[in-house]
Amino acid sequence: MMKKTVKIVTDSVCEELDLKQTCRFLKEKDNFLILCHATPDGDTLGSAYALALGLTTIGKKCMIKCADEIPAKYSYFTKAFENKEIEYETVIAVDVADLQLLGNLAEVFVGKIDLCIDHHISNTRFADRLYLDSSAAANCECIHDIFRHFPLPLDTVSASAIYTGLSTDTGSFKYSNVTAKTHLIAADLYSYDINAAEIGRLMYDTKSRGRLELERMVLDSAEFHFDGKCMLLTATNEMKEKTGCNDNDLEGVAVISRSVEGVLAGISIKQKEADTYKVSVRTYPPLNASEICKALGGGGHVNAAGCSLTGTLQEVKKQILDVVEKNLEA
Amino acid sequence: MMKKTVKIVTDSVCEELDLKQTCRFLKEKDNFLILCHATPDGDTLGSAYALALGLTTIGKKCMIKCADEIPAKYSYFTKAFENKEIEYETVIAVDVADLQLLGNLAEVFVGKIDLCIDHHISNTRFADRLYLDSSAAANCECIHDIFRHFPLPLDTVSASAIYTGLSTDTGSFKYSNVTAKTHLIAADLYSYDINAAEIGRLMYDTKSRGRLELERMVLDSAEFHFDGKCMLLTATNEMKEKTGCNDNDLEGVAVISRSVEGVLAGISIKQKEADTYKVSVRTYPPLNASEICKALGGGGHVNAAGCSLTGTLQEVKKQILDVVEKNLEA
Repeated sequence: MMKKTVKIVTDSVCEELDLKQTCRFLKEKDNFLILCHATPDGDTLGSAYALALGLTTIGKKCMIKCADEIPAKYSYFTKAFENKEIEYETVIAVDVADLQLLGNLAEVFVGKIDLCIDHHISNTRFADRLYLDSSAAANCECIHDIFRHFPLPLDTVSASAIYTGLSTDTGSFKYSNVTAKTHLIAADLYSYDINAAEIGRLMYDTKSRGRLELERMVLDSAEFHFDGKCMLLTATNEMKEKTGCNDNDLEGVAVISRSVEGVLAGISIKQKEADTYKVSVRTYPPLNASEICKALGGGGHVNAAGCSLTGTLQEVKKQILDVVEKNLEA
Repeated sequence: MMKKTVKIVTDSVCEELDLKQTCRFLKEKDNFLILCHATPDGDTLGSAYALALGLTTIGKKCMIKCADEIPAKYSYFTKAFENKEIEYETVIAVDVADLQLLGNLAEVFVGKIDLCIDHHISNTRFADRLYLDSSAAANCECIHDIFRHFPLPLDTVSASAIYTGLSTDTGSFKYSNVTAKTHLIAADLYSYDINAAEIGRLMYDTKSRGRLELERMVLDSAEFHFDGKCMLLTATNEMKEKTGCNDNDLEGVAVISRSVEGVLAGISIKQKEADTYKVSVRTYPPLNASEICKALGGGGHVNAAGCSLTGTLQEVKKQILDVVEKNLEA
C-alpha cells in the first residue's frame, strides 16, 4: 500500500521574533485562531488553551482548532474556555515543529500561519513568524514567558494548563530536557492554587481497561536476544483491535523496552498497516540507536531513533536483530 | 506466628529545635553517627549522605548506619562518601518518625539519639532533640535548609543526594505533598550539575527481568467485579519464586489496582504464608477503604487501607468481595 504524502511547498520567508517582538505582535493583532498539532498532547493543548484564556482575559477573541479529537482527560482546563467559531484574522500554531504535524489541517493552512510558537530545534520555519526557544523543555515554558513579559494575568485554569505541558513533556520532571527554569516555572504555577497531584493522577495513573489489557499483551510479547542485551516488544493491530486501543495508548511502550536491567537495545515494534511496522529503538552505550536505524533506512538520536520496515512481523524482527547483532559485535 | 514487638520506653523529654538552633547544635558537635531508617529509601539515604558529605567538607567526622543493606542503585552518591568506623559522640537520626523504624538498631540506640531531623508529622519524639518540618515534602528539603542556613557547601554529589530524596518522596514531583518550595529547591540543585535524568532513570525506569515478568503475571491475574467497579490483582508466592522476586518488587502494585478508569475499589492481594494474605485496598468516593478494611479486621485511611486475611486465595477473595459488594450497595 502506498503511503499518502502531501508535498507542501511554501515560498514565504520566516521571520524570527524574540520574546518582546512576539508579545508586541500579539498585542497588535486580534481574533486569533490557535492551531494544535494532530494527536494532541498536554503540551500543545496546554499552550493553546493557556494562550486563548490569557488573551481572552484582556478582551481579545480566540478559537482553537486541532485535526484530532481532544482527549477528555484534559477537560480540567479545556472546559473553561468557550471554544466557539469566530471570524479569525490571525493564525498561530503552538508546539508545531512542521506543517505536516497539523494533520488534515496542513493543507488548509499552508502559507496562512502568521506565527508559530515552538520549542523544537527541528522547527521547519513553515510560518511567517517564529518564536522559538529550543532550550525550553516544554512549549508551555515559552507560553509562561509570554504571560510574564506581555504581561497576561494567570489564574488557576491557565496555570493548570501550563503546568500540564511542563509535566507531560518532561515525564513529570524527569527527562533530560528539564532545566532549573522548568522547576522555577512550576514553583510559580503553584501560587495559583493548581491541583498538581490531581493533574499527575489524570496524566499518569489513569488508564482504560483496554489500555491495561494492551499493556499485558505487549508485555506478553517480550523477547530477549543476545544474552538479554536486546529486548523486543511488539504491538500488533490485532492487539489494538481486541482491546479497543489506538496508537495513543502505546505511549510509553518505548520506555518499557529499555527499562530492563542489562538491555542495551530496547526495541518496540508497532504495526501500522498489514505489512508495515514502525520501529522505535532505544539504546545505551556502546550501542547507538541512530546507527542502528540508519542501517534500517531511518534515523534519529544517539539513544533514541526510529525507522519504518515492511514485511511480515518475523521478517521485520529478523532485519532488526541482524543489525543489532552486527552493532553488538562491532 | 507471633510477631515480635519490642516495647521500648524512654523517659527523656524531647526538645524541639528551630533551624537556627539545629545548625548551632551541628556546629558545636563533632564525630557524628547518622542513622537511616530500615528498608532505606531515597529520602533517608539522600538525607544521611548529603549531611555526612556536607559536614565532612568542613572538617567534621561522620559515619552512617542502617539496619538493612543499602541498595546498589544509590551508589551514585553513596560511593562518594568513605563510610568508615569512627568513635562517634553525637547520634543523629534522619527521616525516622519512630524509634522502631530503625529496625534492629532500635534497641541499640534507645535513649541515645541526640537529634532527629524529620518531616513526618507523626514523629514520636524519641530523640533528645527534634528538628521537624512537617510541611516538607521530603526530609531532604530540611537537609537543604540546613545546608543553606549553616551554611554548608553543596557540590554535585550532595546535590544529587538531596535531589534523590525530593524526587523519590514525591513520585517525581507529582504527589500532593509537593509545594512551590520543593520545585525551588530542585531548581537550586540543578545549578550543581546534577544528572537528574539519569537519577530518574535509575529510580523509576530500571527494573530486573524478573520484575518485568512478575508485573506481567500480576496483570494476568486482574479480575473485574461489580460492573468494573472493583478490580483484584494477586501476587502469589509461586509468582515471586518463579521470577526470583521479593515483596520489594511489588512496590507500585497497589497503584495499578486503582489506576483503571471506572474502578472505585482497587484491591491487591499479596501472599505472605501458605494461607495468609496481605490485602491493600485503594478506593475512590463514595467507597471508603478504611470502612472496608475495618470490616475485614484491618484499618487505615479513607482512600488507602489494609488488612491481613487467612484462608485459601478463593476464600480470601470471597471475603473481600462480600464486603466490597455491601459497601457498593450502601
